[in-house]
Formats: sequence, C-alpha cells, structure tokens
Amino acid sequence: MNAKEQLKIYTEEVEAVIEKYLPAEEGHQKTVLEAMDYSVRAGGKRLRPLLMRETYRLFGGNGSEVEPFMAAIEMIHTSSLIHDDLPCMDNDTLRRGVPTTWVKYGYDMAVLAGDGLMIYAFETAAKALSMTENKERAARCMGLLAEKTGIYGMIGGQTVDVELTNKPIPKDKLDFIYRLKTGALLEASMMIGAILAGAGEEDIKAIERTASLVGLAFQIQDDILDVTSSPEMLGKPVLSDEKNNKTTYVTLEGLEKAQKDVEEISAKAVDELHSVGRTNEFLEELIKMLVTRKK
Amino acid sequence: MNAKEQLKIYTEEVEAVIEKYLPAEEGHQKTVLEAMDYSVRAGGKRLRPLLMRETYRLFGGNGSEVEPFMAAIEMIHTSSLIHDDLPCMDNDTLRRGVPTTWVKYGYDMAVLAGDGLMIYAFETAAKALSMTENKERAARCMGLLAEKTGIYGMIGGQTVDVELTNKPIPKDKLDFIYRLKTGALLEASMMIGAILAGAGEEDIKAIERTASLVGLAFQIQDDILDVTSSPEMLGKPVLSDEKNNKTTYVTLEGLEKAQKDVEEISAKAVDELHSVGRTNEFLEELIKMLVTRKK
Repeated sequence: MNAKEQLKIYTEEVEAVIEKYLPAEEGHQKTVLEAMDYSVRAGGKRLRPLLMRETYRLFGGNGSEVEPFMAAIEMIHTSSLIHDDLPCMDNDTLRRGVPTTWVKYGYDMAVLAGDGLMIYAFETAAKALSMTENKERAARCMGLLAEKTGIYGMIGGQTVDVELTNKPIPKDKLDFIYRLKTGALLEASMMIGAILAGAGEEDIKAIERTASLVGLAFQIQDDILDVTSSPEMLGKPVLSDEKNNKTTYVTLEGLEKAQKDVEEISAKAVDELHSVGRTNEFLEELIKMLVTRKK
Repeated sequence: MNAKEQLKIYTEEVEAVIEKYLPAEEGHQKTVLEAMDYSVRAGGKRLRPLLMRETYRLFGGNGSEVEPFMAAIEMIHTSSLIHDDLPCMDNDTLRRGVPTTWVKYGYDMAVLAGDGLMIYAFETAAKALSMTENKERAARCMGLLAEKTGIYGMIGGQTVDVELTNKPIPKDKLDFIYRLKTGALLEASMMIGAILAGAGEEDIKAIERTASLVGLAFQIQDDILDVTSSPEMLGKPVLSDEKNNKTTYVTLEGLEKAQKDVEEISAKAVDELHSVGRTNEFLEELIKMLVTRKK
C-alpha cells in the first residue's frame, strides 16, 4: 500500500474516532449541538489528529487515551473556523462547499457553537484522565492544549491577523502570525502524541520544532496554491489573497523563493523528526505530502 | 467585624488574586490582552471566586493551588459576559457603567477577547498542577470546570435562553435555563473548592446541591430586583424584563410567591451546607446576603 492509500484509510479511522466523541444532538440545547456537530462533520484534512496519532505511535504509544485528545484538537480547530467565518471577522458564507455555521444556524448560534465546541474539546480531553494510569501526562496535555490554543497560540495569531487586515504586514509579524495561527495547534497535536506515549523531554522539544516547521511549510504552501492552483482543484476561489490585498509569504518573497523555501523547510522538518532516533514512515510521508499537495 | 465588613476585605483579597493571574498587556497581541484585562477589571461581585475560596476553607484547605482556579472561574464568567453583550446577542453597550468590550475594542476583538479569556482560564487553572502534590485533584477540577462551563453547563443555558428570546418560556425550561446559565458555574466554584481541599464524594455532592440552590435563589432575586429596585440602587435600568417581554420567575409565579420562594430556597441551601458537618460562618452569611441583596 502506498502512502496515499494509507492516508485514505487512516483518515477514515480518524473520522471514526472524532465521530465517537461528538455530543449527541438531544435535549433543550439540541440546536447548538447540531450546529457544533455540523461544523465538525463538514470535513477537512483531519491533519491535526492524524499527526497526533502518528507521533503517539512513533514513541510506541498503543493505548486509547490519545483518542479523546484527537477529537479535542479537531474540535478546537473547527471552533476557530466557526468564529473566523463570522460576519464581524472574515464574513465567509461557504466553507468546503457548504454554508458556514453562521449562515446555517444564525449569527448568535454560531458564536455559541464556537464557544461550546471550544469548551467541549476540554471536556472531551478530560475523558483521557480515566483512560490511563498516567494521569499526570494527560493533565499536562490538557494544560498544553490550552496554551497552544489561547492568546499565546492560535487565538493570538488570529488576533494579530485580524488587526492587520488591509494593512501591509512586515516579515517579522507575518512569521509571528504563521507560527501562532497555524503552527501552535500543529505543535500541540504532535507534542500531545509524544507526551502521552511517554517521550523524553528532549524528544518532546524536537517534536515541537518539527511541528513548527511543518506548520510554516503548510502555510507557505497555502499561499503558493492561492496563486498557482485553480478553483476546481482547490475547491475554493484562487487569487483571494491578491483580491483582499493580503500580505502573504508569496507577496513578500516572490513565488520562486516561496517554492524553494517550502521544500527546504519541509526537509528540515523531516530532519528534526529523524533526530529522535525512531521511525514512522507514514508520518514522514505525511509531512512530505503536506508541502507537495495541490489542494 | 460583621459579615459586610468581612465581605469587603475578602472581596479585595480575591481581586488581588485575580489581578495576579491576568496576562501582561504586551507583545504583538497587546490589543486583545488589553480587551481581556479591561473586561475582567470592569468589576462585579467576584461571587464565584469568593464561594470557591470559602468552600475550600470549609474543608480545611490552606494551600495556594485554589488561587489559579479562583482567577480561572472569574475569567470564564467574564468571557461569557463579553459574548452575551455582542450585537448578535443582547446588543448591550454598557455594563457596570462602562462601555462593553465590543463597544470599546470592536466587534471582532470582542469575539476574540471572549475566546481568549475562556481558554486563558484553562491555561491559568493548569498552573495549579505545579502547585500541589495532588495533581489528580487539580486535573479533575480542570475537567469539572469544562463540564460546568460548556454546553451541558453555562453555555448550554445561555443557548436555550437565546433561542427563546421573545417567546413565552414554560416553567420547566425556565428552571433548566436558571440551573445551567447561573447555577452551573456556581456549582463549579463550590465543588472545585471542596475537591481541592480533599472533601469526600458525599460532601462534594452536598456542596453541588448547595450551590445549585444558591444559583436558583440568586437568579430569582435578580428577577425580583428588576421589578422592585431603582436604577440608582441597581446601577442598571429596572423593568428591563417587562420591556423585553422576558419570561422570568416573577412573571410566571408573581412577586409575592417569588419573594417567599427565594427565602425558602436560600434556607434550604444553608441546610444543605450544614449537612457536611463543618462550619464556615462567613460562607453561610455570604449565601444569606446573596438573596437579601438590594443590588
């Protein structure tokens, strides 16, 4: 089986784990529960839980306590998309070909569905506490999840991005936004996999560096695809950055350098991964696919 | 010293704890950090951290690991107010006499400040893990905090409330809303105090019932004050429920029965508190004050 076929099977397995942890759509608060589940089920690459599980396996993890964290990280990612799409933010009406949460459930319900999903992620992660003997590791991962999600992580990156809308962004601020908005949650994904599997502190640091590089490469590739892909291939409009006057890695560095850099950063990520002295071929392939992807 | 003087001193102590855990307003994400701190500093009764600390003391707690949780619960409460005030929700422009967060910092920043504060609460709570030998209790409290905040707690209550805006609300749904929207976070406050101090499971359950009754009485008193108080006394407009066509305990049961019930429920709360066989006079006085308050 090649890596692409493997990815398809693994993604389906990850989807099943996420589905298992979604809340039942019942009770007085049925509407918001539907809005939450709708948003998670709308799809995506499931990259974060995939990276988490494979990093967990890399360090010999073979329990089930990683599963609530896999679902939790996807819930957090989704909750950020729900709020990003709001009229007061990006005002997006379509995502992955379906109406965004606020279009389908209303502005107020979308705010609450985003809030609900963000907190439900922590409720879900807390389930790991009763699934493992090593409660200290699980508790540490809950704290890490909050740290990488919050104002010094994903939300912080989003904030700076929103503040600089329609303004030229200098390179150092763009790096900061990419590192936080995209990188932080990928770092959480891989680090939680490593911590739960019992990796040593040095290895956890190497995994954080790996994930940070993966995040940067992933984001640069996003910028590249916006100018080189087609709407048919991408499933969303292209040249949107240019249209929105948005500073990206490509507008700052040029397409050629961006393409060269993304390859270098990706190679560096794989080198970092090798530094832990363990092998997970699929994880390596996954990282390579992310930066050669066409959509 | 009487209970009112005691309350003033204790509230100042609690304020100092909250202040200690607020994030520094610096770095690229300075604006959102300012918005977060502004919202928390806008004031309030600090009821949740007060109840938490006194319940902690009731069970003999004398460490500092309760402090991050005290700050965390106030952050969560504040984050819910930030989102409640948004134009797509209650569209409120003033709270406690100062502009609401979205008025002062913009709609987008208010969404992000609410998100940021909600997550920062969990980052803050996680600090307790390194402040206590009993990491399992602290971890359990993090899970409980999420449960009582989320869609089966505060956010769930808020959702049903929003959905039923301008609609008549039957008694069972009103009870549900009060139990979740107001009660759940009070339950978390007192239960976390009890758990961190090492209370037994039966006592934790008694504390949950106590807090639930306190929440109900507190909310009914809110409804009573809306029809019996003056704007000068309350610091906000009165008769707002009638103006907004809002179903409340008073509109459903009448003022006289509401006043009778609030006293009964409050007395029941104190009885429940006594059932744990320990005494904290100030905690008892605090509960009594909450339902005889004039603002």
